[in-house]
Amino acid sequence: MKLPLGYKYAATYAGIRQVEKDDLALIVSGLPANAAAVFTQNRVQAAPVRLGRSHLKASKGLCGAVVINAGNANCATRSGDAVALATCKAAAKLLHLKVPLVVPSSTGVIGVELDPRKIIDALPRLVSGLSADGFDCVARAIMTTDLVPKTAFAEARLRRGAVRVAGMTKGSGMIQPMMATTLGFVMTDAVIPPTQLRVMLKRGVERSYNRISVDGDTSTNDTLLLLANGASEVRPDPGEFAMVEAAITDVMESLAQQIARDGEGARKLITITVTGAGDSEAAARMARAIANSPLMKTAIAGADPNWGRILSAAGNAGVTFDPKKTDIHMQGVKVCQGGLAAPFDEPELKAKLDAADCEIRVALGGKGKGEARFWTCDLTEGYIRINASYRT
Amino acid sequence: MKLPLGYKYAATYAGIRQVEKDDLALIVSGLPANAAAVFTQNRVQAAPVRLGRSHLKASKGLCGAVVINAGNANCATRSGDAVALATCKAAAKLLHLKVPLVVPSSTGVIGVELDPRKIIDALPRLVSGLSADGFDCVARAIMTTDLVPKTAFAEARLRRGAVRVAGMTKGSGMIQPMMATTLGFVMTDAVIPPTQLRVMLKRGVERSYNRISVDGDTSTNDTLLLLANGASEVRPDPGEFAMVEAAITDVMESLAQQIARDGEGARKLITITVTGAGDSEAAARMARAIANSPLMKTAIAGADPNWGRILSAAGNAGVTFDPKKTDIHMQGVKVCQGGLAAPFDEPELKAKLDAADCEIRVALGGKGKGEARFWTCDLTEGYIRINASYRT
Repeated sequence: MKLPLGYKYAATYAGIRQVEKDDLALIVSGLPANAAAVFTQNRVQAAPVRLGRSHLKASKGLCGAVVINAGNANCATRSGDAVALATCKAAAKLLHLKVPLVVPSSTGVIGVELDPRKIIDALPRLVSGLSADGFDCVARAIMTTDLVPKTAFAEARLRRGAVRVAGMTKGSGMIQPMMATTLGFVMTDAVIPPTQLRVMLKRGVERSYNRISVDGDTSTNDTLLLLANGASEVRPDPGEFAMVEAAITDVMESLAQQIARDGEGARKLITITVTGAGDSEAAARMARAIANSPLMKTAIAGADPNWGRILSAAGNAGVTFDPKKTDIHMQGVKVCQGGLAAPFDEPELKAKLDAADCEIRVALGGKGKGEARFWTCDLTEGYIRINASYRT
Repeated sequence: MKLPLGYKYAATYAGIRQVEKDDLALIVSGLPANAAAVFTQNRVQAAPVRLGRSHLKASKGLCGAVVINAGNANCATRSGDAVALATCKAAAKLLHLKVPLVVPSSTGVIGVELDPRKIIDALPRLVSGLSADGFDCVARAIMTTDLVPKTAFAEARLRRGAVRVAGMTKGSGMIQPMMATTLGFVMTDAVIPPTQLRVMLKRGVERSYNRISVDGDTSTNDTLLLLANGASEVRPDPGEFAMVEAAITDVMESLAQQIARDGEGARKLITITVTGAGDSEAAARMARAIANSPLMKTAIAGADPNWGRILSAAGNAGVTFDPKKTDIHMQGVKVCQGGLAAPFDEPELKAKLDAADCEIRVALGGKGKGEARFWTCDLTEGYIRINASYRT
């Protein structure tokens, strides 16, 4: 599939992380793009999150470049604000952009000062290395202990021509594990006015990034940035915005699923669907409570059709429902009907639960149309090994 | 220390659990005791929880006997209500009590039918075995995969004489792990009117059972029952109720700590103290968020002074605070001052974090007087091993 037009990419090793693996990346849009972003809701926010938010406000939602580093979150640091600003200024000068058109983004260890010289020294070779083909290099440079790079692509064929969407993201795990930091960058070449872009991002996030959990810990650096540079010169007809939004949402949903599947220590992607809740917000709350239950997650790790844990986790979500009307399916097999055990073949279902994809469906049997899907991963000894190791 | 007067205890193996280990227990108060109870807030509630609540209402807060079984939670079962009621009726008949004076209590696997015959057949030998010395036998009979029985004792010397408090509880872990079910029974021989007893229980629970977490999963069967039978014939003076309440709270706090210390797979008890919050409710919410962070729990398992994870978890509690004013101590060593790294000797602190007791203090530096203590345990590979094993 073709990449969106009008974007260039570059990555290099700037010496921020200890292993020699690209840790600094640049995404540039030839024409400043309309940009929409969501940031972490953690009350502790990294310097690049604060500066990125303020830059997008000052630029009235325009973005020409994103500078991303891995290996250091630039959070809870004395020099954090100055380093983030110096990074943007240096990039802006080299790219002949106004400073607020540059968005900074960081992931890695928190509480450790980030040396701005490393970034400023590496920026000239990043800029000279910019290329339309550098997409995969950037997707690899933002990885921490991700086992695989995470990218997704989509296309919408509109009346006036095709528009493309490409996204990349990183998952939970770091060389020096501190946070399950998530970053995501989604680019499109469609012509999308800022207001619509923000709506698309907001709705898309609700169905993707806000529907995953690896361990229930929200990082200080989470950032999802959506850019639309219009380089395709294809302006969707009013009736076509839904197609573009679907393409963007598909990319975001795929990226979010890839994060859950590659969660620290995970062997399985778990998809949880809740139906019959009062509204979709209640359904999502229940799905999240089930996803965050360590007892459910360890049961799936052990291929155990332990529906009692799912019912109990549902009961803890703070959502009104009648357990006596609740059915639960695992891998398409009914394990609980009306809140009671349903007969099923345990060895057969256990074998099905050995798959890399596990599906849990909770039907509340209420009259509500509220439903939600949520993704998480199983909880294995690998998670403990990764996170209980000493940082040095 | 002496046990409270006027209570008798017995335990036996009724064949409910598969290993031959006492699984049915009886606590009887010679004179029906004033009783106060708190039950699980899970929306899915086991039959004995529902019946116990209704019996205490019908008896106007009087309780003469408690029948407890381990090995089966009697939750999400077709015959659940009938089994719980049949149990109470059989015990009431043997003890010459009205049925609502008997409170049932169950812990174990959910979704599996509980055979009432096993209980009814065993009750006569339980009743004939009742003895003031049976306290420890009952504390052992209610264990599931607890490694140690959990009991606590206190005494208050009042003007008119001494009153005693004794409590027992069980922790998280089962032979067939399904729920982190908690049961607690606290007996005193003080003369305490029902209203005061309820207030004491409510306040005590807020400082003990509601301040622990092993894995964030709330069971369907949680029950804490406080009995005051007045057998000491010591009626506290108005000014002495605080002393009795302190004794009761001490017992509950000790029991709760023992549960956290013996959490599934745990090697360490973690005590989290938050100060300087707007109110104690906000402090408790933040302490709970830190306690439930898998990243914090694995860091402590690895003896890693990883304060960034603590700060980030605090930021996720939904509590207003200024990270720039926040200090964090681990084992009495300042690791974070004003939201930034404080200098400390890492190898030395790592050695201190190898202890069985770890202490985290978060001082928000706000003007608020809100503070809270919370207990949890580290998250180790043992938790995964216990819970990812197949039930059969």
